[in-house]
Amino acid sequence: MKCEIIAVGSELLTPWRQDTNSLALTRMLNQIGVSVAFKTIVGDRRNHLVSAIRTALARADILIVMGGLGPTEDDLSREAVAEALDLTLRRDNALIAALSIRFAGRPMTDNNLKQADLIEGATVLPNANGTAPGQWLDTGFAGHRKLVMLVPGPPGECLPLFAEQCIPRLREIIPLRHIAHRTLKATFIPESTADALLAPIYSTFTDVETTILAGNCEIQLQLTCSKPSLEAAQQRVDTLASRLEEALEEHLFSSTGETLEQIVLFYLELKQETLAVAESCTGGLLAQRITSVSGSSRSFLGGAIVYSDALKTAFCAVPPALLEQHGAVSAPVVEALAQGIRQRTGASLGVAITGIAGPGGGSEEKPVGRVYVALSDAHRTQSEECNFRGDRDRIRLWATQKALDMLRRRLMA
Amino acid sequence: MKCEIIAVGSELLTPWRQDTNSLALTRMLNQIGVSVAFKTIVGDRRNHLVSAIRTALARADILIVMGGLGPTEDDLSREAVAEALDLTLRRDNALIAALSIRFAGRPMTDNNLKQADLIEGATVLPNANGTAPGQWLDTGFAGHRKLVMLVPGPPGECLPLFAEQCIPRLREIIPLRHIAHRTLKATFIPESTADALLAPIYSTFTDVETTILAGNCEIQLQLTCSKPSLEAAQQRVDTLASRLEEALEEHLFSSTGETLEQIVLFYLELKQETLAVAESCTGGLLAQRITSVSGSSRSFLGGAIVYSDALKTAFCAVPPALLEQHGAVSAPVVEALAQGIRQRTGASLGVAITGIAGPGGGSEEKPVGRVYVALSDAHRTQSEECNFRGDRDRIRLWATQKALDMLRRRLMA
Repeated sequence: MKCEIIAVGSELLTPWRQDTNSLALTRMLNQIGVSVAFKTIVGDRRNHLVSAIRTALARADILIVMGGLGPTEDDLSREAVAEALDLTLRRDNALIAALSIRFAGRPMTDNNLKQADLIEGATVLPNANGTAPGQWLDTGFAGHRKLVMLVPGPPGECLPLFAEQCIPRLREIIPLRHIAHRTLKATFIPESTADALLAPIYSTFTDVETTILAGNCEIQLQLTCSKPSLEAAQQRVDTLASRLEEALEEHLFSSTGETLEQIVLFYLELKQETLAVAESCTGGLLAQRITSVSGSSRSFLGGAIVYSDALKTAFCAVPPALLEQHGAVSAPVVEALAQGIRQRTGASLGVAITGIAGPGGGSEEKPVGRVYVALSDAHRTQSEECNFRGDRDRIRLWATQKALDMLRRRLMA
Repeated sequence: MKCEIIAVGSELLTPWRQDTNSLALTRMLNQIGVSVAFKTIVGDRRNHLVSAIRTALARADILIVMGGLGPTEDDLSREAVAEALDLTLRRDNALIAALSIRFAGRPMTDNNLKQADLIEGATVLPNANGTAPGQWLDTGFAGHRKLVMLVPGPPGECLPLFAEQCIPRLREIIPLRHIAHRTLKATFIPESTADALLAPIYSTFTDVETTILAGNCEIQLQLTCSKPSLEAAQQRVDTLASRLEEALEEHLFSSTGETLEQIVLFYLELKQETLAVAESCTGGLLAQRITSVSGSSRSFLGGAIVYSDALKTAFCAVPPALLEQHGAVSAPVVEALAQGIRQRTGASLGVAITGIAGPGGGSEEKPVGRVYVALSDAHRTQSEECNFRGDRDRIRLWATQKALDMLRRRLMA
């Protein structure tokens, strides 16, 4: 069954506010086998709202109207749903009584009574955390059965009400399906290359929905399958996952959704290695990514942010002559940094990054985006020259991604 | 003129991903007097996409279709817009040539050529940061003029392309209105306190729209005013801003939208101070925030990530006896770290952070969220004990916020 979520509120159409409830609602819906096909965000205007509701009724079986249930003049969801479905609205005595109890002792303004307006045929969904109750309609539109829910907008009211009142009602109506899910992750493979490689595989699994996401220096493959039994769904997802993993070869770094940082820390601990880093252009971003994982202190000792040349010498014993001869952004210097931080900290592995993150500081010979990354252990020190494109943030992020990926490949070798 | 933004991508209908581009697009649109009336989120299904585009064409004058321009089979925005408008699609030779240049030396798969498909009558919007160009259509639908833009989905491509290619074109068409805007920022003041303090002031300025936003360890006040002349609009915004600034006192750190990092670096340079940091629980996050600002190397020398106790001694000369006596998370140790990193690097200011970011590692005496922050100059070293609530990410972020705010207050004193 197809679902549409309409988030109501003019504030959700400003540059500063965004609907986030729908993510949690989607998670709950997916778990009972309902996928969300459309989301619409609409302001507090009655004609806009009626138009959005009619559009949704025409294309979805389940409609969730979120927000616009409060007591102010701007709260128009009840009126708009009634109008779109050509149903009447009546003030409900039981709801008036419930509101009076809730307001006991406090002044209840007239517009508060709006919250007692019930759509013809609707069931009241009690709101344990606010004054505006939700409403549930099992109705028809253009000859099709439609399930329509009105739920309050504030997250603290919306999410518990939806979980406790809407999900159990949906479960009774929707044929039970079980959904299995897997996330694969790969890095340093362009999205188009990955898709050309993987589409011939995943397109033969028509019962598994495969989504490729690119961003944050990685490719994510989201596999979802819905079957009458969880075993059957899981088996299809796992079979496809194995095929995709094989095709991705060493680009794949995670089979069950872990971050690259988590993978690196997992292998550091498994192989009983310790790590220290020396960062120039990334200025702490690599260490920050590593230490964002709880428990990283078991393998990660720390490191140095060697932004100035003097600190490259002071913390990593890079000879001033080497800096003078090759410049701070060079293979010899990054190797000296990696070796230096390893020896200085007593870590078994040292990683170093130096480069030109921009927007200034580039030259013909060493343009913005030129980055050197080195990895040093007791036996050898290797470095790689990279040329990343994009702005400062992107270059810094890719530089740390390269360092983590070099670590991962060394640890998994 | 009414605008609708359609965000395309099945991933935006999962519990894991959310459109965020539309916030930045809305900001740019508002600045030229265009308000967003609807936002629709739709998956990578051609019939859904065509339906969403037709609905939008029927209710908005300006339509932005965001995403679905990549090279994969799932990327269907070009096809869907052409179908909805009953226009043809043709492969453009100039775009093929541009793609070939972009791919020079790298393998270009067949599906990459999809990105050279141009809608009949469309103008190409060059994409400086990716392979998929945008498209601009000044066309008609049901007898009305419609401006339709196709822009790429990845934020790093979408936002610059929209700012550079779409906004100037819209400006030429839309009757000019004058909108003045100011952003004030404050930190270490609760949202409810700020609102109680400020509402009596801003509510008297009925012609200035004021929005209070809390998040990322700061309070933002967004002031917007629209008038027949820019001078009149700016004057109202500035008058209100002065009154709010006065009320916020030393909590205010920015009067024109700068980040706290930018403010700290501005004052470091102004006062000709240099900075070095020693980070334990924040593991590089403070240095990363500082070095995310271009030009930070003029005042920021670098520092040490002293995750292990041994490195606290090696890099910052913290006496092992001090560590043993007070523990790594203590006022004496954080002060020794700040002093140590300052002396070791030759910086005029040293900042240090040590604490328990959690979720593990807490105790009765030193619970998760306990953080010590110190600031040292040639004359004195001061430290503060903080107790932050929330998860690891939040505690780490607040710890760096505290360090930056201590720096700001010292530099502005």
